[in-house]
Amino acid sequence: MYVESARVLDAYDDEYNGVIVHPESLPSNPTAFASMLRLSITHWKRKGKKGVWLKLPIEKSDLVPIAVKEGFQYHHAEKDYVMMTYWIPEEPCLLPPNASHQVGIGGFVINDRDEVLVVQEKYCAAGLEGLWKIPTGFILASEEIFTGAVREVKEETGVETEFVEVIAFRHAHNVAFEKSDLFFVCMLHPLSTQIKLDDHEIHAAKWMPLVEFVGQPLIQQDTMFKKIIDICIARLGKTYCGLAVHQLASKFDGRLSSLYFNTVEDKNSTCQAS
Amino acid sequence: MYVESARVLDAYDDEYNGVIVHPESLPSNPTAFASMLRLSITHWKRKGKKGVWLKLPIEKSDLVPIAVKEGFQYHHAEKDYVMMTYWIPEEPCLLPPNASHQVGIGGFVINDRDEVLVVQEKYCAAGLEGLWKIPTGFILASEEIFTGAVREVKEETGVETEFVEVIAFRHAHNVAFEKSDLFFVCMLHPLSTQIKLDDHEIHAAKWMPLVEFVGQPLIQQDTMFKKIIDICIARLGKTYCGLAVHQLASKFDGRLSSLYFNTVEDKNSTCQAS
Repeated sequence: MYVESARVLDAYDDEYNGVIVHPESLPSNPTAFASMLRLSITHWKRKGKKGVWLKLPIEKSDLVPIAVKEGFQYHHAEKDYVMMTYWIPEEPCLLPPNASHQVGIGGFVINDRDEVLVVQEKYCAAGLEGLWKIPTGFILASEEIFTGAVREVKEETGVETEFVEVIAFRHAHNVAFEKSDLFFVCMLHPLSTQIKLDDHEIHAAKWMPLVEFVGQPLIQQDTMFKKIIDICIARLGKTYCGLAVHQLASKFDGRLSSLYFNTVEDKNSTCQAS
Repeated sequence: MYVESARVLDAYDDEYNGVIVHPESLPSNPTAFASMLRLSITHWKRKGKKGVWLKLPIEKSDLVPIAVKEGFQYHHAEKDYVMMTYWIPEEPCLLPPNASHQVGIGGFVINDRDEVLVVQEKYCAAGLEGLWKIPTGFILASEEIFTGAVREVKEETGVETEFVEVIAFRHAHNVAFEKSDLFFVCMLHPLSTQIKLDDHEIHAAKWMPLVEFVGQPLIQQDTMFKKIIDICIARLGKTYCGLAVHQLASKFDGRLSSLYFNTVEDKNSTCQAS
Protein backbone atom coordinates (compact mmCIF):
# COMPACT_ATOMS: atom_id res chain seq x y z
CA MET A 1 0.00 0.00 0.00
CA TYR A 2 1.84 3.06 -1.24
CA VAL A 3 -0.73 5.51 0.08
CA GLU A 4 0.27 4.68 3.64
CA SER A 5 3.99 5.16 3.01
CA ALA A 6 3.61 8.23 0.77
CA ARG A 7 5.68 11.25 1.62
CA VAL A 8 6.11 14.66 0.03
CA LEU A 9 8.62 14.77 -2.85
CA ASP A 10 11.93 16.47 -2.06
CA ALA A 11 11.82 19.94 -3.55
CA TYR A 12 13.43 23.33 -3.06
CA ASP A 13 11.95 26.80 -3.46
CA ASP A 14 12.71 29.04 -6.43
CA GLU A 15 12.85 32.85 -6.22
CA TYR A 16 9.30 33.23 -7.57
CA ASN A 17 7.55 31.33 -4.77
CA GLY A 18 7.57 28.13 -6.80
CA VAL A 19 9.10 24.71 -6.10
CA ILE A 20 11.60 22.62 -8.02
CA VAL A 21 11.46 18.87 -7.42
CA HIS A 22 14.83 17.15 -6.87
CA PRO A 23 15.15 14.66 -9.75
CA GLU A 24 17.25 12.38 -7.52
CA SER A 25 14.43 12.04 -5.04
CA LEU A 26 11.97 10.55 -7.55
CA PRO A 27 10.91 6.96 -6.88
CA SER A 28 11.16 4.54 -9.79
CA ASN A 29 7.85 2.91 -9.01
CA PRO A 30 4.99 4.66 -10.82
CA THR A 31 2.41 3.81 -8.16
CA ALA A 32 4.61 5.17 -5.38
CA PHE A 33 5.23 8.28 -7.46
CA ALA A 34 1.49 8.80 -8.05
CA SER A 35 0.78 8.81 -4.29
CA MET A 36 3.72 11.06 -3.50
CA LEU A 37 2.87 13.52 -6.26
CA ARG A 38 -0.75 13.80 -5.15
CA LEU A 39 0.29 14.35 -1.53
CA SER A 40 2.95 16.87 -2.61
CA ILE A 41 0.52 18.99 -4.61
CA THR A 42 -1.84 19.20 -1.61
CA HIS A 43 1.15 20.17 0.55
CA TRP A 44 2.41 22.86 -1.88
CA LYS A 45 -1.09 24.28 -2.30
CA ARG A 46 -1.42 24.62 1.46
CA LYS A 47 1.92 26.45 1.56
CA GLY A 48 0.74 28.95 -1.10
CA LYS A 49 3.25 27.79 -3.69
CA LYS A 50 2.78 28.84 -7.31
CA GLY A 51 4.67 27.00 -10.04
CA VAL A 52 5.94 23.42 -9.73
CA TRP A 53 8.89 22.26 -11.85
CA LEU A 54 9.26 18.51 -12.34
CA LYS A 55 12.23 17.30 -14.39
CA LEU A 56 11.84 13.66 -15.40
CA PRO A 57 15.02 11.99 -16.69
CA ILE A 58 14.48 9.66 -19.68
CA GLU A 59 15.24 6.62 -17.49
CA LYS A 60 12.11 7.51 -15.54
CA SER A 61 9.81 8.00 -18.54
CA ASP A 62 7.34 5.65 -16.80
CA LEU A 63 6.48 8.60 -14.55
CA VAL A 64 5.44 10.88 -17.43
CA PRO A 65 1.87 9.52 -17.80
CA ILE A 66 1.41 9.71 -14.02
CA ALA A 67 2.37 13.39 -13.93
CA VAL A 68 0.03 14.08 -16.87
CA LYS A 69 -2.84 12.41 -14.95
CA GLU A 70 -2.15 14.71 -12.00
CA GLY A 71 -2.51 17.75 -14.27
CA PHE A 72 1.10 18.48 -15.27
CA GLN A 73 1.90 19.88 -18.73
CA TYR A 74 5.08 19.58 -20.75
CA HIS A 75 7.34 22.65 -20.60
CA HIS A 76 10.34 21.64 -22.68
CA ALA A 77 12.53 18.62 -23.36
CA GLU A 78 16.13 17.80 -24.17
CA LYS A 79 17.46 14.44 -25.43
CA ASP A 80 17.55 12.92 -21.97
CA TYR A 81 14.77 14.55 -19.98
CA VAL A 82 11.38 16.18 -20.14
CA MET A 83 10.51 19.16 -17.91
CA MET A 84 6.92 19.24 -16.71
CA THR A 85 5.13 22.06 -14.91
CA TYR A 86 2.05 22.61 -12.81
CA TRP A 87 0.66 26.07 -12.02
CA ILE A 88 -1.21 26.05 -8.72
CA PRO A 89 -2.86 29.51 -8.30
CA GLU A 90 -6.24 30.46 -9.75
CA GLU A 91 -4.60 33.31 -11.66
CA PRO A 92 -2.82 33.64 -15.02
CA CYS A 93 0.25 31.42 -15.27
CA LEU A 94 3.47 33.41 -14.90
CA LEU A 95 5.87 30.57 -15.66
CA PRO A 96 8.44 31.60 -18.28
CA PRO A 97 8.02 30.18 -21.78
CA ASN A 98 10.45 27.62 -23.14
CA ALA A 99 13.05 28.45 -25.78
CA SER A 100 11.37 30.04 -28.78
CA HIS A 101 14.14 30.48 -31.33
CA GLN A 102 16.69 28.72 -33.43
CA VAL A 103 19.71 30.84 -34.25
CA GLY A 104 21.34 30.53 -37.64
CA ILE A 105 24.31 32.25 -39.19
CA GLY A 106 25.44 32.92 -42.73
CA GLY A 107 29.11 33.61 -43.46
CA PHE A 108 29.88 36.17 -46.18
CA VAL A 109 33.53 35.45 -46.95
CA ILE A 110 35.20 37.44 -49.71
CA ASN A 111 38.87 37.36 -50.72
CA ASP A 112 41.01 40.16 -52.10
CA ARG A 113 40.27 39.04 -55.66
CA ASP A 114 36.58 39.83 -55.07
CA GLU A 115 35.60 36.17 -54.97
CA VAL A 116 32.90 34.99 -52.58
CA LEU A 117 33.02 31.60 -50.84
CA VAL A 118 29.85 29.79 -51.96
CA VAL A 119 28.29 26.35 -51.58
CA GLN A 120 25.53 24.19 -53.03
CA GLU A 121 23.74 22.16 -50.37
CA LYS A 122 22.88 18.47 -50.69
CA TYR A 123 19.42 19.00 -49.32
CA CYS A 124 18.01 22.28 -50.51
CA ALA A 125 14.52 23.75 -50.62
CA ALA A 126 12.53 23.15 -53.80
CA GLY A 127 13.16 25.96 -56.27
CA LEU A 128 16.67 26.64 -54.99
CA GLU A 129 18.41 23.83 -56.91
CA GLY A 130 21.59 25.09 -58.54
CA LEU A 131 21.82 28.21 -56.39
CA TRP A 132 25.28 29.08 -55.13
CA LYS A 133 24.78 30.50 -51.64
CA ILE A 134 26.91 31.58 -48.71
CA PRO A 135 27.60 28.86 -46.10
CA THR A 136 24.89 28.78 -43.43
CA GLY A 137 24.09 26.75 -40.36
CA PHE A 138 22.78 26.74 -36.83
CA ILE A 139 24.88 27.79 -33.88
CA LEU A 140 25.40 25.10 -31.26
CA ALA A 141 24.17 25.16 -27.67
CA SER A 142 25.97 27.96 -25.78
CA GLU A 143 28.01 28.93 -28.84
CA GLU A 144 28.76 32.55 -29.71
CA ILE A 145 27.48 33.92 -33.03
CA PHE A 146 31.00 35.03 -33.97
CA THR A 147 32.41 31.57 -33.17
CA GLY A 148 29.56 29.67 -34.81
CA ALA A 149 29.94 31.54 -38.10
CA VAL A 150 33.65 30.73 -38.27
CA ARG A 151 33.00 27.07 -37.31
CA GLU A 152 30.24 26.53 -39.89
CA VAL A 153 32.31 27.98 -42.73
CA LYS A 154 35.24 25.78 -41.70
CA GLU A 155 33.06 22.65 -41.43
CA GLU A 156 31.28 23.12 -44.74
CA THR A 157 34.18 24.37 -46.86
CA GLY A 158 37.43 23.80 -44.96
CA VAL A 159 38.24 27.52 -45.18
CA GLU A 160 39.59 29.29 -42.07
CA THR A 161 38.19 32.74 -41.38
CA GLU A 162 38.05 35.44 -38.75
CA PHE A 163 34.89 37.24 -37.68
CA VAL A 164 34.53 40.88 -38.71
CA GLU A 165 30.95 42.01 -38.05
CA VAL A 166 27.29 41.09 -37.94
CA ILE A 167 25.98 42.89 -41.02
CA ALA A 168 22.23 42.44 -40.54
CA PHE A 169 19.80 39.91 -39.12
CA ARG A 170 16.58 38.35 -40.31
CA HIS A 171 13.71 37.32 -38.05
CA ALA A 172 11.35 34.68 -39.46
CA HIS A 173 8.51 32.73 -37.85
CA ASN A 174 6.96 29.26 -37.97
CA VAL A 175 10.14 27.79 -39.35
CA ALA A 176 11.09 24.48 -37.69
CA PHE A 177 8.58 22.96 -35.23
CA GLU A 178 6.59 26.21 -35.39
CA LYS A 179 9.50 28.03 -33.71
CA SER A 180 11.04 31.28 -34.88
CA ASP A 181 14.40 31.77 -36.46
CA LEU A 182 16.98 34.51 -36.08
CA PHE A 183 19.54 34.48 -38.86
CA PHE A 184 22.67 36.61 -38.51
CA VAL A 185 24.58 37.55 -41.65
CA CYS A 186 28.24 37.76 -40.67
CA MET A 187 31.09 39.24 -42.61
CA LEU A 188 34.18 37.05 -42.24
CA HIS A 189 37.71 37.61 -43.42
CA PRO A 190 39.35 34.56 -45.08
CA LEU A 191 42.60 33.25 -43.54
CA SER A 192 43.03 30.33 -45.97
CA THR A 193 41.92 29.55 -49.51
CA GLN A 194 41.86 25.78 -50.04
CA ILE A 195 38.42 24.18 -50.13
CA LYS A 196 37.70 20.84 -48.46
CA LEU A 197 34.06 19.75 -48.68
CA ASP A 198 31.83 18.38 -45.96
CA ASP A 199 30.39 15.41 -47.87
CA HIS A 200 27.43 14.95 -45.55
CA GLU A 201 25.78 18.30 -46.09
CA ILE A 202 27.49 20.02 -49.00
CA HIS A 203 27.27 19.08 -52.65
CA ALA A 204 29.84 21.59 -53.94
CA ALA A 205 31.82 24.65 -52.82
CA LYS A 206 33.99 27.17 -54.64
CA TRP A 207 35.26 30.73 -54.78
CA MET A 208 32.94 32.60 -57.15
CA PRO A 209 33.49 36.09 -58.63
CA LEU A 210 31.26 38.54 -56.75
CA VAL A 211 29.55 39.81 -59.95
CA GLU A 212 28.72 36.27 -60.97
CA PHE A 213 27.41 35.45 -57.47
CA VAL A 214 25.20 38.53 -57.37
CA GLY A 215 24.10 38.00 -60.97
CA GLN A 216 22.43 34.64 -60.24
CA PRO A 217 18.76 34.97 -61.32
CA LEU A 218 17.58 33.33 -58.08
CA ILE A 219 19.28 36.11 -56.13
CA GLN A 220 18.23 38.96 -58.41
CA GLN A 221 14.61 37.81 -58.23
CA ASP A 222 14.45 37.55 -54.45
CA THR A 223 13.93 40.75 -52.45
CA MET A 224 15.41 39.29 -49.25
CA PHE A 225 18.52 37.66 -50.82
CA LYS A 226 19.14 40.73 -52.94
CA LYS A 227 18.91 43.16 -50.03
CA ILE A 228 21.26 41.10 -47.85
CA ILE A 229 23.87 40.96 -50.59
CA ASP A 230 23.48 44.66 -51.40
CA ILE A 231 24.25 45.37 -47.75
CA CYS A 232 27.33 43.12 -47.81
CA ILE A 233 28.56 44.95 -50.90
CA ALA A 234 27.94 48.34 -49.26
CA ARG A 235 29.96 47.10 -46.30
CA LEU A 236 32.83 46.16 -48.63
CA GLY A 237 32.72 49.70 -50.03
CA LYS A 238 32.73 50.98 -46.43
CA THR A 239 29.45 52.81 -46.98
CA TYR A 240 27.73 50.58 -44.44
CA CYS A 241 28.51 49.77 -40.81
CA GLY A 242 27.81 46.43 -39.22
CA LEU A 243 27.83 45.46 -35.57
CA ALA A 244 31.12 44.57 -33.95
CA VAL A 245 31.19 42.34 -30.88
CA HIS A 246 32.55 43.16 -27.45
CA GLN A 247 32.57 40.81 -24.51
CA LEU A 248 31.50 42.57 -21.36
CA ALA A 249 30.98 41.43 -17.80
CA SER A 250 27.99 42.17 -15.69
CA LYS A 251 28.83 42.51 -12.02
CA PHE A 252 25.59 41.11 -10.78
CA ASP A 253 25.58 37.66 -12.24
CA GLY A 254 29.33 37.58 -12.88
CA ARG A 255 28.38 36.61 -16.41
CA LEU A 256 30.52 37.51 -19.43
CA SER A 257 28.27 38.12 -22.37
CA SER A 258 28.61 39.50 -25.86
CA LEU A 259 27.29 42.90 -26.85
CA TYR A 260 26.94 43.57 -30.58
CA PHE A 261 26.85 47.22 -31.54
CA ASN A 262 27.71 49.60 -34.27
CA THR A 263 31.11 51.17 -34.46
CA VAL A 264 30.90 54.19 -36.70
CA GLU A 265 34.14 56.09 -36.90
CA ASP A 266 32.65 59.26 -38.25
CA LYS A 267 30.83 60.66 -35.25
CA ASN A 268 29.05 63.18 -37.47
CA SER A 269 27.13 60.56 -39.38
CA THR A 270 23.43 60.65 -38.78
CA CYS A 271 20.65 58.13 -38.88
CA GLN A 272 17.66 58.09 -41.20
CA ALA A 273 15.22 57.03 -38.51
CA SER A 274 14.32 59.86 -36.21
CA MET B 1 -2.61 -10.86 -29.45
CA TYR B 2 -1.34 -7.51 -30.72
CA VAL B 3 1.70 -8.98 -32.41
CA GLU B 4 -0.50 -10.79 -34.92
CA SER B 5 -2.51 -7.67 -35.81
CA ALA B 6 0.48 -5.30 -35.79
CA ARG B 7 0.89 -3.06 -38.81
CA VAL B 8 3.36 -0.33 -39.70
CA LEU B 9 2.51 3.12 -38.27
CA ASP B 10 1.18 5.62 -40.79
CA ALA B 11 4.02 7.96 -41.68
CA TYR B 12 5.08 10.25 -44.50
CA ASP B 13 8.55 11.01 -45.84
CA ASP B 14 10.36 14.26 -45.11
CA GLU B 15 12.76 15.94 -47.55
CA TYR B 16 15.84 14.51 -45.78
CA ASN B 17 14.98 10.82 -46.28
CA GLY B 18 13.35 10.61 -42.86
CA VAL B 19 9.81 9.72 -41.80
CA ILE B 20 7.22 11.63 -39.80
CA VAL B 21 4.62 9.52 -38.01
CA HIS B 22 1.00 10.73 -38.36
CA PRO B 23 -0.09 11.55 -34.77
CA GLU B 24 -3.70 10.64 -35.71
CA SER B 25 -2.68 7.11 -36.61
CA LEU B 26 -1.32 6.28 -33.15
CA PRO B 27 -3.20 3.59 -31.26
CA SER B 28 -4.21 4.42 -27.69
CA ASN B 29 -3.28 1.00 -26.39
CA PRO B 30 0.36 0.89 -25.26
CA THR B 31 0.79 -2.81 -26.07
CA ALA B 32 -0.55 -2.35 -29.59
CA PHE B 33 1.71 0.68 -30.01
CA ALA B 34 4.77 -1.29 -28.83
CA SER B 35 4.23 -3.96 -31.50
CA MET B 36 3.53 -1.46 -34.24
CA LEU B 37 6.53 0.69 -33.35
CA ARG B 38 8.88 -2.31 -33.39
CA LEU B 39 7.54 -3.48 -36.73
CA SER B 40 7.74 0.06 -38.14
CA ILE B 41 11.38 0.53 -37.17
CA THR B 42 12.31 -2.73 -38.93
CA HIS B 43 10.34 -1.58 -41.97
CA TRP B 44 11.95 1.89 -42.06
CA LYS B 45 15.43 0.40 -41.60
CA ARG B 46 14.84 -1.90 -44.57
CA LYS B 47 13.77 1.12 -46.65
CA GLY B 48 17.00 2.99 -45.77
CA LYS B 49 15.21 5.71 -43.82
CA LYS B 50 17.26 7.99 -41.57
CA GLY B 51 15.48 10.09 -38.93
CA VAL B 52 12.11 9.16 -37.41
CA TRP B 53 9.90 11.91 -35.94
CA LEU B 54 7.25 10.79 -33.46
CA LYS B 55 4.98 13.48 -32.02
CA LEU B 56 3.07 12.20 -28.98
CA PRO B 57 0.12 14.38 -27.90
CA ILE B 58 -0.26 14.75 -24.13
CA GLU B 59 -3.46 12.65 -24.20
CA LYS B 60 -1.26 9.75 -25.34
CA SER B 61 1.47 10.20 -22.73
CA ASP B 62 1.10 6.46 -21.96
CA LEU B 63 3.06 5.85 -25.17
CA VAL B 64 6.11 7.85 -24.04
CA PRO B 65 7.73 5.06 -21.96
CA ILE B 66 7.11 2.58 -24.83
CA ALA B 67 8.93 4.80 -27.32
CA VAL B 68 11.80 5.26 -24.85
CA LYS B 69 12.11 1.46 -24.51
CA GLU B 70 12.39 1.21 -28.31
CA GLY B 71 15.31 3.65 -28.29
CA PHE B 72 13.62 6.99 -28.95
CA GLN B 73 14.97 10.19 -27.39
CA TYR B 74 13.18 13.41 -26.56
CA HIS B 75 13.66 16.20 -29.10
CA HIS B 76 11.48 19.01 -27.78
CA ALA B 77 8.15 19.55 -26.07
CA GLU B 78 5.37 22.09 -25.96
CA LYS B 79 2.55 22.26 -23.39
CA ASP B 80 0.46 19.62 -25.15
CA TYR B 81 2.92 17.28 -26.85
CA VAL B 82 6.39 15.81 -26.75
CA MET B 83 8.37 15.22 -29.96
CA MET B 84 10.55 12.11 -29.92
CA THR B 85 13.17 11.07 -32.46
CA TYR B 86 15.08 7.99 -33.53
CA TRP B 87 18.15 8.13 -35.78
CA ILE B 88 18.48 4.91 -37.76
CA PRO B 89 21.85 5.07 -39.65
CA GLU B 90 25.21 4.08 -38.20
CA GLU B 91 26.53 7.57 -38.89
CA PRO B 92 26.46 10.89 -37.01
CA CYS B 93 22.93 12.14 -36.34
CA LEU B 94 21.98 14.97 -38.70
CA LEU B 95 18.64 15.79 -37.10
CA PRO B 96 18.32 19.53 -36.45
CA PRO B 97 18.60 20.67 -32.84
CA ASN B 98 15.59 22.00 -30.97
CA ALA B 99 15.11 25.68 -30.17
CA SER B 100 18.15 27.03 -28.37
CA HIS B 101 17.26 30.60 -27.47
CA GLN B 102 14.90 32.78 -25.56
CA VAL B 103 14.51 36.24 -27.03
CA GLY B 104 14.11 39.22 -24.75
CA ILE B 105 13.67 42.89 -25.41
CA GLY B 106 14.32 46.06 -23.45
CA GLY B 107 12.50 49.27 -24.33
CA PHE B 108 14.44 52.53 -24.00
CA VAL B 109 11.66 55.15 -24.01
CA ILE B 110 12.62 58.78 -23.57
CA ASN B 111 10.32 61.81 -23.79
CA ASP B 112 11.14 65.31 -24.99
CA ARG B 113 11.86 66.44 -21.43
CA ASP B 114 14.76 63.95 -21.33
CA GLU B 115 12.96 61.61 -18.97
CA VAL B 116 13.35 57.86 -19.32
CA LEU B 117 10.50 55.41 -18.65
CA VAL B 118 11.76 53.14 -15.86
CA VAL B 119 10.42 50.35 -13.67
CA GLN B 120 11.25 48.40 -10.54
CA GLU B 121 10.36 44.71 -10.84
CA LYS B 122 8.55 42.70 -8.16
CA TYR B 123 10.93 39.77 -8.57
CA CYS B 124 14.44 41.00 -9.21
CA ALA B 125 17.85 39.38 -9.04
CA ALA B 126 19.69 39.65 -5.73
CA GLY B 127 21.84 42.77 -5.72
CA LEU B 128 19.54 44.68 -8.06
CA GLU B 129 16.99 45.74 -5.43
CA GLY B 130 16.10 49.40 -5.81
CA LEU B 131 17.44 49.68 -9.34
CA TRP B 132 15.30 51.64 -11.77
CA LYS B 133 15.64 49.86 -15.10
CA ILE B 134 14.09 50.02 -18.55
CA PRO B 135 11.06 47.75 -19.09
CA THR B 136 12.12 44.29 -20.32
CA GLY B 137 10.44 41.03 -21.20
CA PHE B 138 10.35 38.04 -23.51
CA ILE B 139 8.81 38.17 -26.93
CA LEU B 140 5.90 35.77 -27.46
CA ALA B 141 5.81 32.85 -29.86
CA SER B 142 5.93 34.17 -33.45
CA GLU B 143 6.04 37.78 -32.27
CA GLU B 144 8.20 40.39 -33.99
CA ILE B 145 10.91 42.12 -31.94
CA PHE B 146 9.52 45.54 -32.86
CA THR B 147 6.00 44.48 -31.79
CA GLY B 148 7.12 42.69 -28.65
CA ALA B 149 9.03 45.72 -27.38
CA VAL B 150 5.99 47.98 -27.79
CA ARG B 151 3.71 45.36 -26.17
CA GLU B 152 5.97 44.78 -23.15
CA VAL B 153 6.31 48.51 -22.43
CA LYS B 154 2.54 48.92 -22.72
CA GLU B 155 1.85 45.90 -20.45
CA GLU B 156 4.31 46.88 -17.75
CA THR B 157 3.74 50.64 -17.69
CA GLY B 158 0.60 51.44 -19.70
CA VAL B 159 2.61 53.76 -21.94
CA GLU B 160 2.01 53.60 -25.72
CA THR B 161 5.10 53.77 -27.90
CA GLU B 162 6.28 53.29 -31.44
CA PHE B 163 9.36 51.34 -32.45
CA VAL B 164 12.36 53.30 -33.73
CA GLU B 165 15.39 50.99 -33.92
CA VAL B 166 17.24 48.06 -32.44
CA ILE B 167 20.21 49.80 -30.80
CA ALA B 168 22.33 46.79 -29.88
CA PHE B 169 21.90 43.20 -28.75
CA ARG B 170 23.40 41.05 -26.03
CA HIS B 171 24.04 37.32 -26.33
CA ALA B 172 24.26 35.40 -23.04
CA HIS B 173 24.45 31.68 -22.32
CA ASN B 174 23.19 29.20 -19.75
CA VAL B 175 20.39 31.48 -18.71
CA ALA B 176 17.05 29.67 -18.27
CA PHE B 177 17.07 25.84 -18.54
CA GLU B 178 20.66 26.03 -19.79
CA LYS B 179 19.43 27.81 -22.94
CA SER B 180 20.90 30.98 -24.41
CA ASP B 181 19.38 34.39 -24.44
CA LEU B 182 19.36 37.11 -27.07
CA PHE B 183 18.36 40.48 -25.66
CA PHE B 184 17.55 43.32 -28.06
CA VAL B 185 17.74 46.88 -26.77
CA CYS B 186 15.09 48.85 -28.65
CA MET B 187 14.68 52.59 -28.87
CA LEU B 188 10.99 53.48 -28.70
CA HIS B 189 9.27 56.80 -29.12
CA PRO B 190 6.56 57.54 -26.52
CA LEU B 191 3.03 58.24 -27.78
CA SER B 192 1.44 58.69 -24.35
CA THR B 193 2.65 59.71 -20.91
CA GLN B 194 0.31 58.33 -18.25
CA ILE B 195 1.61 55.35 -16.30
CA LYS B 196 -0.61 52.40 -15.38
CA LEU B 197 1.21 49.61 -13.55
CA ASP B 198 1.07 45.88 -14.19
CA ASP B 199 0.58 44.74 -10.57
CA HIS B 200 1.67 41.15 -11.23
CA GLU B 201 5.21 41.85 -12.34
CA ILE B 202 5.99 45.49 -11.64
CA HIS B 203 6.52 47.09 -8.26
CA ALA B 204 6.80 50.70 -9.51
CA ALA B 205 7.19 52.70 -12.71
CA LYS B 206 7.91 56.37 -13.44
CA TRP B 207 9.47 58.89 -15.78
CA MET B 208 12.98 59.55 -14.46
CA PRO B 209 15.34 62.34 -15.58
CA LEU B 210 18.01 60.80 -17.83
CA VAL B 211 20.91 62.09 -15.71
CA GLU B 212 19.39 60.60 -12.58
CA PHE B 213 18.76 57.28 -14.37
CA VAL B 214 22.34 57.08 -15.66
CA GLY B 215 23.73 58.24 -12.32
CA GLN B 216 22.42 55.22 -10.41
CA PRO B 217 25.44 53.53 -8.79
CA LEU B 218 24.28 50.08 -9.93
CA ILE B 219 24.44 51.29 -13.54
CA GLN B 220 27.69 53.20 -13.20
CA GLN B 221 29.35 50.14 -11.65
CA ASP B 222 28.23 47.68 -14.31
CA THR B 223 30.19 47.54 -17.58
CA MET B 224 27.29 46.00 -19.54
CA PHE B 225 24.51 48.31 -18.26
CA LYS B 226 26.75 51.33 -18.64
CA LYS B 227 27.73 50.53 -22.22
CA ILE B 228 24.12 49.92 -23.30
CA ILE B 229 23.01 53.23 -21.87
CA ASP B 230 25.98 55.08 -23.35
CA ILE B 231 24.92 53.73 -26.74
CA CYS B 232 21.32 54.85 -26.20
CA ILE B 233 22.56 58.33 -25.31
CA ALA B 234 24.82 58.41 -28.38
CA ARG B 235 21.78 57.47 -30.45
CA LEU B 236 19.84 60.37 -28.90
CA GLY B 237 22.67 62.69 -29.94
CA LYS B 238 22.55 61.12 -33.43
CA THR B 239 26.17 60.05 -33.20
CA TYR B 240 25.13 56.40 -33.30
CA CYS B 241 23.06 54.39 -35.77
CA GLY B 242 20.84 51.52 -34.79
CA LEU B 243 19.16 48.94 -36.97
CA ALA B 244 15.84 49.79 -38.56
CA VAL B 245 13.45 47.04 -39.58
CA HIS B 246 12.12 46.29 -43.04
CA GLN B 247 9.71 43.51 -43.86
CA LEU B 248 10.75 41.71 -47.00
CA ALA B 249 9.32 38.75 -48.86
CA SER B 250 11.29 35.78 -50.06
CA LYS B 251 9.92 34.32 -53.30
CA PHE B 252 10.86 30.79 -52.48
CA ASP B 253 8.93 30.14 -49.34
CA GLY B 254 6.47 33.02 -49.84
CA ARG B 255 7.49 34.06 -46.33
CA LEU B 256 7.45 37.66 -45.19
CA SER B 257 10.24 38.17 -42.70
CA SER B 258 11.91 41.08 -40.97
CA LEU B 259 15.38 42.27 -41.88
CA TYR B 260 17.09 44.54 -39.37
CA PHE B 261 19.88 46.65 -40.78
CA ASN B 262 21.68 49.88 -40.37
CA THR B 263 20.45 53.00 -42.11
CA VAL B 264 23.27 55.49 -42.15
CA GLU B 265 22.35 58.63 -44.02
CA ASP B 266 25.89 59.83 -44.53
CA LYS B 267 27.25 57.41 -47.12
CA ASN B 268 30.76 58.65 -46.46
CA SER B 269 30.87 57.38 -42.93
CA THR B 270 33.34 54.58 -42.40
CA CYS B 271 33.56 51.68 -40.02
CA GLN B 272 36.23 51.05 -37.41
CA ALA B 273 36.48 47.34 -38.14
CA SER B 274 38.36 46.59 -41.32
